[in-house]
Amino acid sequence: MTWRISNHAISVETLLNLESIFALGNGYLGVRGNFEEGYAEGMDSIRGTYLNAFHDVINIPYGEKLFAFPSTQQKLVNGIDSQSIRLFIGEEEEPFSLFDGKVLSYERHLHLDKGYAEREIHWQSPSGHEIKISFRRLISFEYRELFAIDIFIEGINFTGPVKIVSTVNGNVRNYTAVNDPRVASGHAQLLSVKECGTREEYGYVMSETTESSLQMACVTRHEYSGSPQVQVDCNATKVEHTYIFSLEEPMHLTKWNIYTDTLRHGEHPIDQGIELQERLKGKKFEDLLILQKDYMDQFWKSSDIIIENDTSIQEGIRFNVYQLLQSAGRDSFSNISAKGLSGEGYEGHYFWDTEIYLFPVFLMTHPDMAKQLLLYRYSTLEQAKDRAREMGHAKGALFPWRTISGTECSSFFPSGTAQYHISADIAYSYIQYYLAEDDRNFLLQYGAEVLFETARLWIEIGHDYKGGFHIDEVTGPDEYTCCVNNNYYTNVMAQNNLKWAVKSYEILKAYDQSSWAELCNRLEVSPDEVESWNQASITMYLPFDEELGVNPQDDTFLRKKVWDFENTPKDKYPLLLNYHPLTIYRYQVCKQADTVLAHFLIEDAQDMETIQHSYDYYEGITTHDSSLSTCIFSIMASKVGYMDKAYEYFTETARLDLDNTHGNTKDGLHLANMGGTWMAIVYGFAGLRLKESGLSLAPSIPTSWERYAFRIRYRGRLIQVQINNERIQLGLLEGKELTVQLYEEHVILKLNDTINKSLK
Amino acid sequence: MTWRISNHAISVETLLNLESIFALGNGYLGVRGNFEEGYAEGMDSIRGTYLNAFHDVINIPYGEKLFAFPSTQQKLVNGIDSQSIRLFIGEEEEPFSLFDGKVLSYERHLHLDKGYAEREIHWQSPSGHEIKISFRRLISFEYRELFAIDIFIEGINFTGPVKIVSTVNGNVRNYTAVNDPRVASGHAQLLSVKECGTREEYGYVMSETTESSLQMACVTRHEYSGSPQVQVDCNATKVEHTYIFSLEEPMHLTKWNIYTDTLRHGEHPIDQGIELQERLKGKKFEDLLILQKDYMDQFWKSSDIIIENDTSIQEGIRFNVYQLLQSAGRDSFSNISAKGLSGEGYEGHYFWDTEIYLFPVFLMTHPDMAKQLLLYRYSTLEQAKDRAREMGHAKGALFPWRTISGTECSSFFPSGTAQYHISADIAYSYIQYYLAEDDRNFLLQYGAEVLFETARLWIEIGHDYKGGFHIDEVTGPDEYTCCVNNNYYTNVMAQNNLKWAVKSYEILKAYDQSSWAELCNRLEVSPDEVESWNQASITMYLPFDEELGVNPQDDTFLRKKVWDFENTPKDKYPLLLNYHPLTIYRYQVCKQADTVLAHFLIEDAQDMETIQHSYDYYEGITTHDSSLSTCIFSIMASKVGYMDKAYEYFTETARLDLDNTHGNTKDGLHLANMGGTWMAIVYGFAGLRLKESGLSLAPSIPTSWERYAFRIRYRGRLIQVQINNERIQLGLLEGKELTVQLYEEHVILKLNDTINKSLK
Repeated sequence: MTWRISNHAISVETLLNLESIFALGNGYLGVRGNFEEGYAEGMDSIRGTYLNAFHDVINIPYGEKLFAFPSTQQKLVNGIDSQSIRLFIGEEEEPFSLFDGKVLSYERHLHLDKGYAEREIHWQSPSGHEIKISFRRLISFEYRELFAIDIFIEGINFTGPVKIVSTVNGNVRNYTAVNDPRVASGHAQLLSVKECGTREEYGYVMSETTESSLQMACVTRHEYSGSPQVQVDCNATKVEHTYIFSLEEPMHLTKWNIYTDTLRHGEHPIDQGIELQERLKGKKFEDLLILQKDYMDQFWKSSDIIIENDTSIQEGIRFNVYQLLQSAGRDSFSNISAKGLSGEGYEGHYFWDTEIYLFPVFLMTHPDMAKQLLLYRYSTLEQAKDRAREMGHAKGALFPWRTISGTECSSFFPSGTAQYHISADIAYSYIQYYLAEDDRNFLLQYGAEVLFETARLWIEIGHDYKGGFHIDEVTGPDEYTCCVNNNYYTNVMAQNNLKWAVKSYEILKAYDQSSWAELCNRLEVSPDEVESWNQASITMYLPFDEELGVNPQDDTFLRKKVWDFENTPKDKYPLLLNYHPLTIYRYQVCKQADTVLAHFLIEDAQDMETIQHSYDYYEGITTHDSSLSTCIFSIMASKVGYMDKAYEYFTETARLDLDNTHGNTKDGLHLANMGGTWMAIVYGFAGLRLKESGLSLAPSIPTSWERYAFRIRYRGRLIQVQINNERIQLGLLEGKELTVQLYEEHVILKLNDTINKSLK
Repeated sequence: MTWRISNHAISVETLLNLESIFALGNGYLGVRGNFEEGYAEGMDSIRGTYLNAFHDVINIPYGEKLFAFPSTQQKLVNGIDSQSIRLFIGEEEEPFSLFDGKVLSYERHLHLDKGYAEREIHWQSPSGHEIKISFRRLISFEYRELFAIDIFIEGINFTGPVKIVSTVNGNVRNYTAVNDPRVASGHAQLLSVKECGTREEYGYVMSETTESSLQMACVTRHEYSGSPQVQVDCNATKVEHTYIFSLEEPMHLTKWNIYTDTLRHGEHPIDQGIELQERLKGKKFEDLLILQKDYMDQFWKSSDIIIENDTSIQEGIRFNVYQLLQSAGRDSFSNISAKGLSGEGYEGHYFWDTEIYLFPVFLMTHPDMAKQLLLYRYSTLEQAKDRAREMGHAKGALFPWRTISGTECSSFFPSGTAQYHISADIAYSYIQYYLAEDDRNFLLQYGAEVLFETARLWIEIGHDYKGGFHIDEVTGPDEYTCCVNNNYYTNVMAQNNLKWAVKSYEILKAYDQSSWAELCNRLEVSPDEVESWNQASITMYLPFDEELGVNPQDDTFLRKKVWDFENTPKDKYPLLLNYHPLTIYRYQVCKQADTVLAHFLIEDAQDMETIQHSYDYYEGITTHDSSLSTCIFSIMASKVGYMDKAYEYFTETARLDLDNTHGNTKDGLHLANMGGTWMAIVYGFAGLRLKESGLSLAPSIPTSWERYAFRIRYRGRLIQVQINNERIQLGLLEGKELTVQLYEEHVILKLNDTINKSLK
């Protein structure tokens, strides 16, 4: 049962969450798990269809607008709805609804191994007609524009007419909530219908955004059994196909919806949609299922994690990894939004979540997809340079804290623009890619430029103070402490950024001198400038407190009063929804891993003792109000040998959305946390690290597990790692011989050979 | 000529500024200096009429709204316009306009000694009709609701008909500007007309605000010479009286406008307005002028400052003091807004400007008006306590950074709510009042409660760190450095606040034990709590830098990089309009006096050497982008003996609005700076201080002055201070014998006696 997520109860309370859980997507197109037939009147639902990166531009309002506050932001648009299929049973045309009549049985599944979702329903209408209905739906991994719904209906005690009304609806709005800063509070109506009609057997709706003037089309075709009566109705905003079947024998109908847009399909999205439909003609829903299964097999080959004797966790981790696949953008317009394509939380923006929590998963399992994520950031480099100028920096690139198309979308700078570390995080992902793939050509074409421009940023904002390179007035990852000097995380990440800018310069000089010279010339990089990066890196000030033996989060963090946790009732968490930011900033209290995260990402900057002290210290004052926190604490608990804690944090991580532990899964899934689950196993329990010296592992196993196993890709190889209570088994399934560090030892992996070692 | 402000040129460029300069007011009612007859088409004008504290409530928009961000704010409403009087000359009805025909002579004066404004015009119409017109206008100090305009017209080569159209117009809007954070960007339409009509000879308009449901009425009556044809027209938003005179001989018309509101006049503002009109019947404009002159004579008796042989400065200082009189609220609903009643800048809000820059002037010249300002703050104490709770503090009062009716109106907390010092500033003004007036009864009834509740706030937000009382995460006066720990200004002001809370407790115990006990009981003040105030005051941490010998502005200020002033072009000032706040915060750069201001207000906290070092240090990094800065630097330059600088800063201060040196006088006058001018003379050059030990003076004189003189009130006395290049002459004009400290010496002032001493 660990390959599918199931639900058997129809509960009004959980319906909104399940819409996120059962969301489907393929990185381009995403559809929430709404009921085709709709809900009972007055029931809350977020009916959503999203094209990754398809956005409108909206004004950001301010009470007091200061210089360089962004005046507009992008917002992911809730697109044309093609989910709607209403059924009417019998001569009386009783509408089918799970909130009316009698539900004799109900099953809902998301098939993680097969890539589709289904509902199986045995239903009795108010007047007593009994039918069985199955809805199956998928968003194709093979045909990115395709969202298909298949309906199968069987009469049980009934053979009369069944009317199916299938709609493509352009009258859609975005979801809003006034008092939650994590959800948009305005700008619901972003899309308006430009064209709506039929061409041959196709129905289509084409809509345009208000400000960004992007167009999206949905072209729909129905394929069905038998010879129903057909009727087509159009109005200004929707196309409705009505089919009246006589339920003598079971019937089926498949709705093929193709979504195109002007971001990716040129100027005529309707024509493009029809052309794509033509290519699919003759295919059956069953064909799609086969293609989907093939794709999933390939995916799981390098992505699956096996956890023996813990089905709940096994289910959680597979669900999470599956959702990562569904969410990741595969083109240069798109990335992975904080909620993937499963909801509208955080307005569909891309954050540092990608680089620090999601990129590592793809890097070690599907490096081609990881590369796409880097290419997206590269495509926004010019905007990051413009933003740096706007912020008063003569050189360098400042990446936006949150964005879709590349410009800064954060309107609250203390925990937005002030998080300059985003630029170091992006640099870090380019460095990790280089370490994993050794792709010097990519470094030459893309990576070096990003590393150089981000290095320049640190020179711009840092300065020498008594021999140390200081970075003032930035916010680290912890959003409960804003606008500080010498945030340890930022400084150590900037140091790494600067060091690798210098290294890349040297590597490329040796790799391809003429291209290197051309690059340096184009970017006006001089040896003097490189030396300034080197100096800043060498003299980077990393705060350290002798008394506590920890790295202070910033220059004054440890001098503040510790938050009064004892007298803070549970219902006051998350603190950000219950206290003014100033009040929160006044105390030692962390929303999430900050210094502890730095110790993970750049572990060689401190000795093990300091890392352990820091862990102990910050753990006591961290609320984990951010979903980006517990996974890191799990990883670091593994590192410092607190196995019980590592497991405890991991379990909180693994089923965050499935169990709605943060209470806001309705707004979409917590993607970063999902990546964090994978990391907590691979980087945490198994102790994987990627460094200049190569790949290393330092495995451990939670006491309640018997065995766990996963695979990673590394420089063309596929490596299998299996760990049980006693032993580690490493196998090389694909690729050339490789030396891997296991604990302190170096072992050589050979193709189709396995190495067995005792667990420490 | 130093008793009037004059203007002889009609320049489109300066017209908007002159509207502020020639604004009239009496603390209740304010009218900008617009032309009665209007302007040429397309000319920019801010036609404004304001009732102090008469506001609407508007929503504050946020891109991301966090907890306890105020959701609404108050906004001063531009009220019913009664300025408009259009003239049409001759049978052709040529409209009189200074932008048409020929202006043969033009004079405009604001009479600081007589309390009215006038325009004298000799005009030739396009067709050649020549007339002389005078407009005189006043807002009565005797009848606070009255705004009167008197027109006198004389034909020069012309005796035909003159048509006068006098309007009371309810169709008014507030002024908006999108990209200046100092001016509102939205919410223009706040007032709508509820009633409009005539009753007997009165025309009236009554309007209501959209959200706050406050009503304002303007009831108008015309009184005139001769027997013109009269016509009255009403529409939904205005009443228009038309008079057609035959200009055989000179004619005059007086428009008596009475403004009432539901804040201060009960539920029927029209009836109230008519009643007030009835009481004025029989009076002539000339009678008003006499009353106005009497009032001004009384005012100037204690407020005038004489500066010999510098007419430009003399004019500036009189203008400033006059505008203070026009702006100060005299009831418990109103205070002094940042722009007085001369414009809409900062949305008519009251800031700390009152307590630190304006209150001292009234305290030493018109203590009754100073007392009113304290009573206003007292009336908002409950709201300040509510706000403290909302901000997470179990006890105490946090006064709003900006407000009209008492709730926090700042939407950008780093330089808004974070300025907790506002509460210490308000406490400071209560302490100063006690020192000046020795009014224990007032302390018992009002002052102690304010001091106790503000003292509680510091206990709430401060904490002990290594034996010192630390205050974290606040913003001091300098808005170029926000959200810091141990801002010297805040800490030393909080220390004073705490100290005086303890002192008041002791004073009142000795003064009236039973009332004291009742007060302590009502406020639940225990000896233990008072001891905690005492301890916090004694152990208050005041940052000091050994190396530089200065008080650092905060814990990390001196570790930041100094702003690159050399490479900042002039057009990049004020910095806040050209750099993102983060960029500004990153550097050592001050918008205004902060530590230097602390050294003025609490001078005994540091020795003279430190004060001088601080002055030298901060002067080098202060931009004076705030109009609240140069006056303080002038005062402190006097203190540390930099007489040239003191004078230089003073001159920048004295004529800021008259010369529009900040470029935004159009939005209203800079009231705080105007108070600062007075302070730069009295506290600066003359070195006045008010302490527990009594009144002291340490006079000096700018080298270019021959003599200056001023008067102060102190505990029932009126003291005359005259200083020339050689001598100081002190005289006691009213009240009992008094010992005053002059330099290090104590001198005894006796009634009608003068003391002469050499200038040091």
